[in-house]
Amino acid sequence: MGLAAVGWSIFSEQLRHSPSNPDWPGRDRFVLSNGHASMLLYSLLHLSGYELTLDDLRSFRQLGSRTPGHPERGHTPGVEITTGPLGQGFANAVGFALAERMLAARFNRDGHEIIDHRTWFICSDGDLMEGISYEASSLAGFLRLGKLIGVYDDNRISLDGPTALAFNDDVAARFSAAGWRVLHVSDGNDAQELSSVLSEATESDGRPTLVVARTVIGFGAPTKEGTSDAHGAPLGEEEAAGAKAALGLQPETFHVPDGVAEWAEELTDRGLRHEVEWGVRMEAYRAAFPGDADALERALAGTPPAGWADAIPDAAPDARAVASRTSSGTVLNALAEAIPELVQGAADLSVSTNTTITGSGTVAPGDFSGRNIMFGVREHAMAAIVNGLAAHGGFRPVCSTFLTFSDYMKNSIRLAALMKLPSVFIFTHDSIALGEDGPTHQPVEHVAGLRAIPGLVVLRPADAAETAGAWRVAIERTGGPTALILSRQSLAPLPGDPDVGRGAWVVAGGDDCILIASGSEVGVALEARDGLAATGIGARVVSMPSHELFAAQDPAYRESVLPSAIRARVA
Amino acid sequence: MGLAAVGWSIFSEQLRHSPSNPDWPGRDRFVLSNGHASMLLYSLLHLSGYELTLDDLRSFRQLGSRTPGHPERGHTPGVEITTGPLGQGFANAVGFALAERMLAARFNRDGHEIIDHRTWFICSDGDLMEGISYEASSLAGFLRLGKLIGVYDDNRISLDGPTALAFNDDVAARFSAAGWRVLHVSDGNDAQELSSVLSEATESDGRPTLVVARTVIGFGAPTKEGTSDAHGAPLGEEEAAGAKAALGLQPETFHVPDGVAEWAEELTDRGLRHEVEWGVRMEAYRAAFPGDADALERALAGTPPAGWADAIPDAAPDARAVASRTSSGTVLNALAEAIPELVQGAADLSVSTNTTITGSGTVAPGDFSGRNIMFGVREHAMAAIVNGLAAHGGFRPVCSTFLTFSDYMKNSIRLAALMKLPSVFIFTHDSIALGEDGPTHQPVEHVAGLRAIPGLVVLRPADAAETAGAWRVAIERTGGPTALILSRQSLAPLPGDPDVGRGAWVVAGGDDCILIASGSEVGVALEARDGLAATGIGARVVSMPSHELFAAQDPAYRESVLPSAIRARVA
Repeated sequence: MGLAAVGWSIFSEQLRHSPSNPDWPGRDRFVLSNGHASMLLYSLLHLSGYELTLDDLRSFRQLGSRTPGHPERGHTPGVEITTGPLGQGFANAVGFALAERMLAARFNRDGHEIIDHRTWFICSDGDLMEGISYEASSLAGFLRLGKLIGVYDDNRISLDGPTALAFNDDVAARFSAAGWRVLHVSDGNDAQELSSVLSEATESDGRPTLVVARTVIGFGAPTKEGTSDAHGAPLGEEEAAGAKAALGLQPETFHVPDGVAEWAEELTDRGLRHEVEWGVRMEAYRAAFPGDADALERALAGTPPAGWADAIPDAAPDARAVASRTSSGTVLNALAEAIPELVQGAADLSVSTNTTITGSGTVAPGDFSGRNIMFGVREHAMAAIVNGLAAHGGFRPVCSTFLTFSDYMKNSIRLAALMKLPSVFIFTHDSIALGEDGPTHQPVEHVAGLRAIPGLVVLRPADAAETAGAWRVAIERTGGPTALILSRQSLAPLPGDPDVGRGAWVVAGGDDCILIASGSEVGVALEARDGLAATGIGARVVSMPSHELFAAQDPAYRESVLPSAIRARVA
Repeated sequence: MGLAAVGWSIFSEQLRHSPSNPDWPGRDRFVLSNGHASMLLYSLLHLSGYELTLDDLRSFRQLGSRTPGHPERGHTPGVEITTGPLGQGFANAVGFALAERMLAARFNRDGHEIIDHRTWFICSDGDLMEGISYEASSLAGFLRLGKLIGVYDDNRISLDGPTALAFNDDVAARFSAAGWRVLHVSDGNDAQELSSVLSEATESDGRPTLVVARTVIGFGAPTKEGTSDAHGAPLGEEEAAGAKAALGLQPETFHVPDGVAEWAEELTDRGLRHEVEWGVRMEAYRAAFPGDADALERALAGTPPAGWADAIPDAAPDARAVASRTSSGTVLNALAEAIPELVQGAADLSVSTNTTITGSGTVAPGDFSGRNIMFGVREHAMAAIVNGLAAHGGFRPVCSTFLTFSDYMKNSIRLAALMKLPSVFIFTHDSIALGEDGPTHQPVEHVAGLRAIPGLVVLRPADAAETAGAWRVAIERTGGPTALILSRQSLAPLPGDPDVGRGAWVVAGGDDCILIASGSEVGVALEARDGLAATGIGARVVSMPSHELFAAQDPAYRESVLPSAIRARVA
């Protein structure tokens, strides 16, 4: 209720979108970072003409409805990204804005600004208190993402009470310090002021823009307006009725006032005109640059170019021992030649994670043509921005850091899995054998924790051949995220030809017991096998780079790898 | 090398510490947030007279040495906190400063300022890029922690190259916006300027102070000074020799110039004088307020008052079903009456996590007497600040949020376990039965991920009696952190008398199969048992609130709960 006017002002006046075609590639993106205000978004989608009915709104927060408690990408037309955990949407919006600039740098040609849209977001005090939003704002300011426009819902109320109980940042000064332009709306219910300031926001001076809008939570509710009682619980019938009376609305529930439906039709028509106009420009682009037009369409569709897998170099059978972070770097660079939409970034560790795409530049303010993104020491925002790149379309984004710092990115990885986004997470320095950095840098529990995330495929390859196979799985996997767990230390090549896509395979036979391992421990298992052989015990060694992929195999294959008759097993 | 003068200026002129007694309670705390500069800290500790020899320095970064790659609390005299993962130390320092103010509010009396020390920290650009440092700075500014003084090592170099590749925040403006005073040192090698600015920093105007010191990484190295080559790898012999020549030092390695040892002795003596003077004041305090003096000593020792466990209310045998977050709130409040050093804070969810200590106020700028800390929506900083409170001494800190947001705090929880700090983490809304918030708020993998952290005890109680038992375990556990996993929904009381300290117990007997569950799933298991009984199958139901505690039991007890003869088991 506090954001109704703000939301309506954005949706009806500013947002260039096409409600009847939520997937129109030329659309502005909109992110509601404070996902708990989901009904605001659902109402706006309904009123703007998206395929979301009053009945959908009536089943708000009910199992199976299209209006769940927090907005879910892929579930509700017009919802660009899943939000709820605070700060994530802010960083996803930075990812959208970065994707737009990077796509424009690749595909726009003189006189053909085929990629040219804005990213809008709304965020709350909770979003701004979260560190991830600071990280993302700092990078957005650095990169001068001028087409990113956010509205900060300055309602001064959080769940536990007034924000003044814990938060008194000078938000405008903070964002200025991070390289943003800051505008103000003194009354978030003043349609004229909103219209004027939001229009000003679209005239970029090169910096991203934050509009600080003073609002009133639960606007109109007779006793709960402006209090934390309006934050996390329904108003109740009496307050709702009082609010309607105060706002001059009819008492019926789920009632759309006269004239609003006509307005919505006009919005749908306006969206179609935007879309048609863009289609005409796209045709002109296709006529002038047919190859680019095909490449753009393919990239937006998320399909890698035909034959991409041929680019993966064969691991030489006589290869020397090599760290999987190193062989990964080789494969990644070979794939990058075949797959132009493959881009990567690291959290100030690209030197150690070996993910730099050589022969390509670094994304920088004013030059977004590079394929290497320097995220800085901002792991959490990195993951959420990569999710934004993946959700926007046009890129296969990869990001990297040390495995121990996956802790900092945990929730964003989970959200990639929930959203089925094909983000690729590279985690190197994957065991206590990472060198002299000590226990703070030694991952012990991290692979187990990542494997526990539903929808994430975790691959821990044991040599160069498995690493190549792991990359193939990651690229083939367009319906969800993948984590590659890589070593710092050298790994000797295993005998045999792995089928990483099946999750596990038999490296060395034996019928008395099974040693199951992954990554650098497969070599340890082979040594143990030799030791056991010396005592007359025949140990089978199974390399299991991915639990998830192995569990998905048919029973016959699983039985062939882990025969049920062999009960003595060490994993 | 870039921070040598800064560090020496702090240690030799500013820090009120006692090198021969690193545990003197009245000491200033020092935190090196950029833990990868550990040799700076080890050198300063050695030169200041701490029990750390040149031989210790010679075994830098070697297995078993007292000079590991990153500083480790409890391992090296004078190291207050384990640092390495960037940003953590910054937030820990905020925790130290908060502990000092809260302890002062409890124990200082007119004319007896027995608690009166500063917290110093050094941080790097990497620390400042991390969201956790923003969160912690925002809270420190809000709370006006005037005795917190940090030096920002503005060397403009990160591992991947110049910080200008990814970071151009106006750091001074950012900290001003968060309520800090900002001072500047234009030449971090100018001893006089350092002395003057750091002295000014100790004259608090009520705000925390950040000193922005312009430094040169690898200062003195002929070709690597000021470059990222000096960041993460040894300089090499030639550069090291060149640096010594340039700085006018003798060529020997591990050589302490003449006169420095005498200076160190003077520092040790000065420290002893500080300590003796404080001891005299403490005796006067004890004479005037003997009960308070005892209470302070006990709190600093970390021992709960005798008989504290009697405060835990019995769960009535005929109790109604109640959510474990609710019964936890009851127990926590009962414990709070018995244990004055018990304090709690939530990340803007205290209304939902039921952790508020009723009858006590909220920690606020200028009034630190309350026992409820409003951390704001800052989960990551919350956990690290709680670690700082625990490491400082004088408090048993508890913090809370929803289980799904444990993702945001993961690395700090891990560090609590590494440091063996008795931080207590409360995570409520522990299953998909959390209501209508949807998948972003539904924890699925989180308990598994937490259980995988070595050194963390995770307890997921199944009813009110188990919740009381879980709290008893948490308070008894002074040598490491504990996580309590609690439900939003009501849990019916189980039959029988749980011994939560043993990790698992038999709720209902049966010899055909075993159903093992925790928390809200124990009730489900009991229902399944009834269903199985109807088909003639006798199922034993085991409630296992803690895997770690059960695994630590003797074999006979484990066998009594999970008889090896019963092979059919579902967990």
